[in-house]
Amino acid sequence: MTFQFRCERALIRSPLCVGLDPDEALLPPAVRSGADALLQFNLAIVDATCDLAGAYKPNLAFYEVHGTRGFEVLEATIRHIRSRQPDALIIADAKRGDIGNTSKAYAAAMFHKLGCDAVTVNPYMGRDSVEPYLEDDSKGAFVVCLTSNRGSSDFQWLDCGGRPLYEIVAGQVSSWNTRGNCGLVVGATQPERRAAIRKAAGRMPFLVPGVGAQGGDVETSVRINNDGAFVNAFINASRSILYASREEDFAEAARAAAAELLARIRGAGTHRP
Amino acid sequence: MTFQFRCERALIRSPLCVGLDPDEALLPPAVRSGADALLQFNLAIVDATCDLAGAYKPNLAFYEVHGTRGFEVLEATIRHIRSRQPDALIIADAKRGDIGNTSKAYAAAMFHKLGCDAVTVNPYMGRDSVEPYLEDDSKGAFVVCLTSNRGSSDFQWLDCGGRPLYEIVAGQVSSWNTRGNCGLVVGATQPERRAAIRKAAGRMPFLVPGVGAQGGDVETSVRINNDGAFVNAFINASRSILYASREEDFAEAARAAAAELLARIRGAGTHRP
Repeated sequence: MTFQFRCERALIRSPLCVGLDPDEALLPPAVRSGADALLQFNLAIVDATCDLAGAYKPNLAFYEVHGTRGFEVLEATIRHIRSRQPDALIIADAKRGDIGNTSKAYAAAMFHKLGCDAVTVNPYMGRDSVEPYLEDDSKGAFVVCLTSNRGSSDFQWLDCGGRPLYEIVAGQVSSWNTRGNCGLVVGATQPERRAAIRKAAGRMPFLVPGVGAQGGDVETSVRINNDGAFVNAFINASRSILYASREEDFAEAARAAAAELLARIRGAGTHRP
Repeated sequence: MTFQFRCERALIRSPLCVGLDPDEALLPPAVRSGADALLQFNLAIVDATCDLAGAYKPNLAFYEVHGTRGFEVLEATIRHIRSRQPDALIIADAKRGDIGNTSKAYAAAMFHKLGCDAVTVNPYMGRDSVEPYLEDDSKGAFVVCLTSNRGSSDFQWLDCGGRPLYEIVAGQVSSWNTRGNCGLVVGATQPERRAAIRKAAGRMPFLVPGVGAQGGDVETSVRINNDGAFVNAFINASRSILYASREEDFAEAARAAAAELLARIRGAGTHRP
């Protein structure tokens, strides 16, 4: 199955992406006391949200910080997502970017060792640093374009001959998209900048972090990416779902937060562009 | 000990950095048949080069591709470097870059879980994505500025109001360097572009990949970074040292290649700027 088809199928099912960033310090005590807190937490979150989410986005930093054990938790979490919801897109939020032979090793790590469908990639080193992630048309890469953090203005907004850098990134990535397996990471916190990116990007899917804890705007994100048939973007929330409650009811609270966000996305999506 | 002092001490001892990128397909048969090929290879390379190298730079992709086992090999390699050469700077070539709470987790992974002294970081997401790596003045970050690959022209060379993006990166990172623990990654393949970076960067140390297999120029790299007392840059070679021979004499051949490169660096460094 091509990445493009897999992506569309996931988006039609649900544009909600649940970010799996398990921070040990924030885990509910009910889980934290167990021998295998991180894994138990992830499995409970996946069980509680797998009929609502079209995608899951584990952030690799939160696993690497635990060394070999973190890698095992990540592998087990991915297997569990596959068993509960085979159609969910699994995006390794890795933001890697390096020269060709290194990117090739990262791609093998993310796609074959971990079994993810997609990876987030940093554009700074250019086309040949991204290509190794695009060779297999059943796998894809979301290239970081405009992010939701304060520092996005330091370089991404720079005027490069009349256009901001992030727009040039969007245009370039669009020209690399010969297999239909490129997407863009476009943060939710800067609505006025995003319409231009959608224009430069054509029909590439977006991955939209920054709603929830980072305060980004859901409705604008949906409106800009509304395709008529579906919202052509995975709207990601991590902390606002994972830590909706830190009591024993954390899984039900995560489910309620995910359902509420999905309802908001769907509500905004009923307005045709 | 501050990072700045540790770095200078390592540079005075030797500006040679050995990149530890063990590619299973390229390992010598003598090692490949063993139960623990990657680790045996790394230990032999470290043993053969530890009196010549001021720094080691394991590239994380080549460990991640082996999952949990790769992480164990990386941890054991780092312990071995420390035991053989406590003064060597260990640089995790990770090229990470993400929002603050994620960068914080990556910093903990690289500095505390793995025990590295420094990490390579991508600038695209701006200051707050780099700051978590700079909070502890005994640890440091080499921010990617100008790389040695073909794709470096796609974005790094873009004209941003009269100056190329990589120069703006160099200037910005210089302004973040309040604790003396920032450096820059400046590839060796574009001599004509590097003098301007050194000017914008002040006394920050450089990490210079791209000599050896990538064909970069050693002499210019040294000349630009010659500080009088020492060469203010770690000149990295990976493949040209690791795979100098793929026969049983691979370790001696690696040592000979490292010694030859160090002699070239020292030779070029005798010409005062």
